[in-house]
Amino acid sequence: MPEAAARTPYDADALVDVAVRVFLERGYDGTSMGDIARAAGLGKSSIYHHVAGKEDLFERGVRRALDALFAALEEPKCRRGRPVDRLRAVIARTVHIMTEQPAEVALLLRVRGNTPVERTVVERRRAFDRIVTELVLEASKAGEVRADLDPALVTRLVFGMSNSVVEWYRVDGSLRPPEIVAAIDAIVFDGLVP
Amino acid sequence: MPEAAARTPYDADALVDVAVRVFLERGYDGTSMGDIARAAGLGKSSIYHHVAGKEDLFERGVRRALDALFAALEEPKCRRGRPVDRLRAVIARTVHIMTEQPAEVALLLRVRGNTPVERTVVERRRAFDRIVTELVLEASKAGEVRADLDPALVTRLVFGMSNSVVEWYRVDGSLRPPEIVAAIDAIVFDGLVP
Repeated sequence: MPEAAARTPYDADALVDVAVRVFLERGYDGTSMGDIARAAGLGKSSIYHHVAGKEDLFERGVRRALDALFAALEEPKCRRGRPVDRLRAVIARTVHIMTEQPAEVALLLRVRGNTPVERTVVERRRAFDRIVTELVLEASKAGEVRADLDPALVTRLVFGMSNSVVEWYRVDGSLRPPEIVAAIDAIVFDGLVP
Repeated sequence: MPEAAARTPYDADALVDVAVRVFLERGYDGTSMGDIARAAGLGKSSIYHHVAGKEDLFERGVRRALDALFAALEEPKCRRGRPVDRLRAVIARTVHIMTEQPAEVALLLRVRGNTPVERTVVERRRAFDRIVTELVLEASKAGEVRADLDPALVTRLVFGMSNSVVEWYRVDGSLRPPEIVAAIDAIVFDGLVP
């Protein structure tokens, strides 16, 4: 029914926006297509004009975050230069993504690998962590970051810090992304002690 | 029925252990007393010999984490000495608590303040953060930590890093608490750049 679809302001992307919000509020398991339809103000059947179902919405939501994270790795600043500068650039871009897509990243971070789709997501998340761990190792071999810490542990801890931004960041809050990025960069690379 | 109670190996504390695990798996809203009874291998009615209900179990679970965190603030190393050393001690003790009670802390961190009990929990969590923020401010005024970062932001970010430990820490894993504490201390206070 193309005419009906044309009358609604919704497309698949707008539905993913709504679904991500509802998944975060109610949990993926606790969310039905009826919940998403209600939140979108649509009939359940019209949702299926746009997406295949709940898992499709979930996959599109986390894919936004994953695609943004992997795209960051391809940016010139993250690919060229000294390993430590590439690492700084990757972390800065990652934090920006947390502030640009906090809901999608929050959903991504909650994935535990309970279904085949979730396991694929966990695999991509791990692949991203491995790339960054390699970069920490490279920077440490070059003497640009301290060599006395396990690179995989460093990666986990640094992402622990940057990921936590999605828990409290507000688009209309007083803390702006550049200030958050600068604080994380300062703590992680230079430490609190002057 | 004291005899029936005496026959079961469960007391309230053991039930809280089980309930915390089930809450983390299914979410608090998604958990029924029947789920907890099944996980404990008990009849639903025998649970009520020990605890008042689901909210009671939840409250006891998060209270373990909160009590441990507040008790840490009272330890000599966290109360005496230079502000920066007290801050280091508080963070180290906090990370140890993450590894001692990862489930309880994970439950505490998920609380969003949706019910009166949850709001009380959020208030205690904020009170803890405020005490640590004061300590960051004190250390920065003493010139012991850099003064160019917002103390509340520093507190959030450092706890973001240390809280993340509960997401991956395994009692039987190869990373031991002292190594994790040392890595967090090294990154937060000295930074990755040598």
